[in-house]
Amino acid sequence: MSELAFKAGELDAGDGLAGVRSRFVLDDVVYLDGNSLGALPASVPGRVDDVVRRQWGELRIRSWEESGWWTAPERIGDRIAPLVGAGVGQVVVGDSTSVNVFKALVGAVRLARLGSGSGSGSGSVRDELVVDATTFPTDGYIAESAARLTGCTLRPVTPERVPEVLGARTAAVLLNHVDYRSGRLHDLPALTDAVHAAGAVVVWDLCHSAGALPVGLDAHGVDLAVGCTYKYLNGGPGSPAYLYVRRELQDRFDSPLPGWNSHAEPFGMRPDYEPAAGALRGRVGTPDILSMLALEAALDVWDGVSIESVRAKSLALTDFFVECVAAHVPEGRVELVTPVAHRERGSQIALRCDDAGDVMKKLIERGVVGDFRHPDVLRFGFTPLYVGFGDVERAARVLGEVLR
Amino acid sequence: MSELAFKAGELDAGDGLAGVRSRFVLDDVVYLDGNSLGALPASVPGRVDDVVRRQWGELRIRSWEESGWWTAPERIGDRIAPLVGAGVGQVVVGDSTSVNVFKALVGAVRLARLGSGSGSGSGSVRDELVVDATTFPTDGYIAESAARLTGCTLRPVTPERVPEVLGARTAAVLLNHVDYRSGRLHDLPALTDAVHAAGAVVVWDLCHSAGALPVGLDAHGVDLAVGCTYKYLNGGPGSPAYLYVRRELQDRFDSPLPGWNSHAEPFGMRPDYEPAAGALRGRVGTPDILSMLALEAALDVWDGVSIESVRAKSLALTDFFVECVAAHVPEGRVELVTPVAHRERGSQIALRCDDAGDVMKKLIERGVVGDFRHPDVLRFGFTPLYVGFGDVERAARVLGEVLR
Repeated sequence: MSELAFKAGELDAGDGLAGVRSRFVLDDVVYLDGNSLGALPASVPGRVDDVVRRQWGELRIRSWEESGWWTAPERIGDRIAPLVGAGVGQVVVGDSTSVNVFKALVGAVRLARLGSGSGSGSGSVRDELVVDATTFPTDGYIAESAARLTGCTLRPVTPERVPEVLGARTAAVLLNHVDYRSGRLHDLPALTDAVHAAGAVVVWDLCHSAGALPVGLDAHGVDLAVGCTYKYLNGGPGSPAYLYVRRELQDRFDSPLPGWNSHAEPFGMRPDYEPAAGALRGRVGTPDILSMLALEAALDVWDGVSIESVRAKSLALTDFFVECVAAHVPEGRVELVTPVAHRERGSQIALRCDDAGDVMKKLIERGVVGDFRHPDVLRFGFTPLYVGFGDVERAARVLGEVLR
Repeated sequence: MSELAFKAGELDAGDGLAGVRSRFVLDDVVYLDGNSLGALPASVPGRVDDVVRRQWGELRIRSWEESGWWTAPERIGDRIAPLVGAGVGQVVVGDSTSVNVFKALVGAVRLARLGSGSGSGSGSVRDELVVDATTFPTDGYIAESAARLTGCTLRPVTPERVPEVLGARTAAVLLNHVDYRSGRLHDLPALTDAVHAAGAVVVWDLCHSAGALPVGLDAHGVDLAVGCTYKYLNGGPGSPAYLYVRRELQDRFDSPLPGWNSHAEPFGMRPDYEPAAGALRGRVGTPDILSMLALEAALDVWDGVSIESVRAKSLALTDFFVECVAAHVPEGRVELVTPVAHRERGSQIALRCDDAGDVMKKLIERGVVGDFRHPDVLRFGFTPLYVGFGDVERAARVLGEVLR
């Protein structure tokens, strides 16, 4: 046994989260793609079967009330809330991330024009929408649409440059907590403060951070946030996303998608729209119950697990992966894209590599699953709930074999 | 046995669709709420279990390709297409009906301003959005938002008055094929022609007609259409909706929700948005796979079933229900809201009734499930795939007992 394999064994032996792995359905593959699609929690198949056969098949329409279908978006939102540092009543689940980005951005511009930013901005013309230029593409595309529909100019800049472009014209700023490609963690508290100082409204995309590290939405005064649930929250393929609207902004949150589910009296069937109070103002149409209740079952894996312990293990895993890569992979064959500093690192390691697409294919053939991001990035995601240190050592070792 | 029960037996014996009932999971309840949530097709539970345990649990991320997840929205759209009279490549599945109404309406206004209506409109200021004033509320709420974001005025009128309000200022018109409350079927060909004559773009909401009667989208030159899949298409609670964009308009369809799934090269991760060709331009974010593949399995019940035969049986069922209600229910206790004329009737019967809410509760207690629509309507939906004439007679008989 190599020195690193021995160290992996010791780290696994001391891992307080090691037991959580049994809450997932896994095989002998090293699955480092949980930042794209989380593994299947063991609680899901039985729950989904019950939803299909009993709730839908037997109770049918009665389940909207009796099985709690109608209130699922806010109930499940409240289960996600503690994972992102939000108190109850501020997170609602439903629709895709892209659709939630749209709700949040148009809502943010409208809030900014009401003078709802934390700063002095009231009265100025707020016609700029600032967006992370290196963002996951859908955020940029949707931001462009939101800008066009609200009479704003889109201003893409790198996150580092955000503070210098903020000003009296800034309406809203859309930022990623963790960059999907590089795995870089951005400084949410400082950037939120900077946006507020300019009197603008901030929207954070938590897709690559929620479930992997503490977010602290309430503590840092974030205005709006969105995120998906199929990565570190393991909700299943295309499981619904969520929207966070800070409590103090909810009464003024003015959704561009005011579907009947967000009405104060949805079954009143009234011709005039009157928005509901609270988080459910972010709802739109009828929720996709199968996907949503699969997510609810998936959240059972968090019972008794603190996000702080997850973060500690995540950093240990990624540190160890970097160490193992340095030992196993031939010098100069890969380049670390993800920052070394803990405060700048999410829960993934991205390596720049020639022929990255082919290399990833070979890794997958050998039982190490990460993913490839165009044009030259190998991406490895570490879900502390089910990835162990032995997995990490094996992944780096196989990568070394493939690259040698 | 009463004369009507005898007649029901004869009608059931001659029902060419009677055998389709065995494709559903049903019990001895008379389920007349398939216009709200369709019953569970027998093919669904096993398929969903396979999607969860094998496709997600074992193949995980590989299923996006190997299990056909990525192409599901357009593949399933093509299975719905023949049911609404659309050729391939024009229907895409995903998001809620409300979200699709938003895409369609903003897209319609933009098309109208390009002069894409079939009429002479190019060049005029098109700033009115006409909407059915008696529409299901979400359509009206979303239309108001679409109007606001595109600089239009919302003009709600009853469908009968639509032709008289159309003009050079009309950008888009949103209409329901069948009214959700009354069950009235509107004249889609004539209204479509009227909208086109004004140079405007028409959007049809098919929620209460698709799967119950022929729609003929292509044949009648409809521009855009949306619909849900959990009513007569039996896709399950909150199953994804669909969007139809007529082929000739697809290149100019300019979605307000240009998520990465609608990009010409989604995995190119390019910062600039370039829309895909064809129906998939209507996609937005990552599709909710569990709900979507449940819908795909549910569509198996249509194998060998023509929508014309469904329509013929639907009219026979609703005719017979009206006949049985007249015989069983005390004179003056209910009032028929749904039109008598076949060309004006969808697949439901709505009865105005004092204490409708209480009456429906009692019906449900006695095994007859319809629903109540505020303030005074009893609504009975007839899904020809699984409702028989014996069910109809029993429902009317029990209604008579409750009201006597």
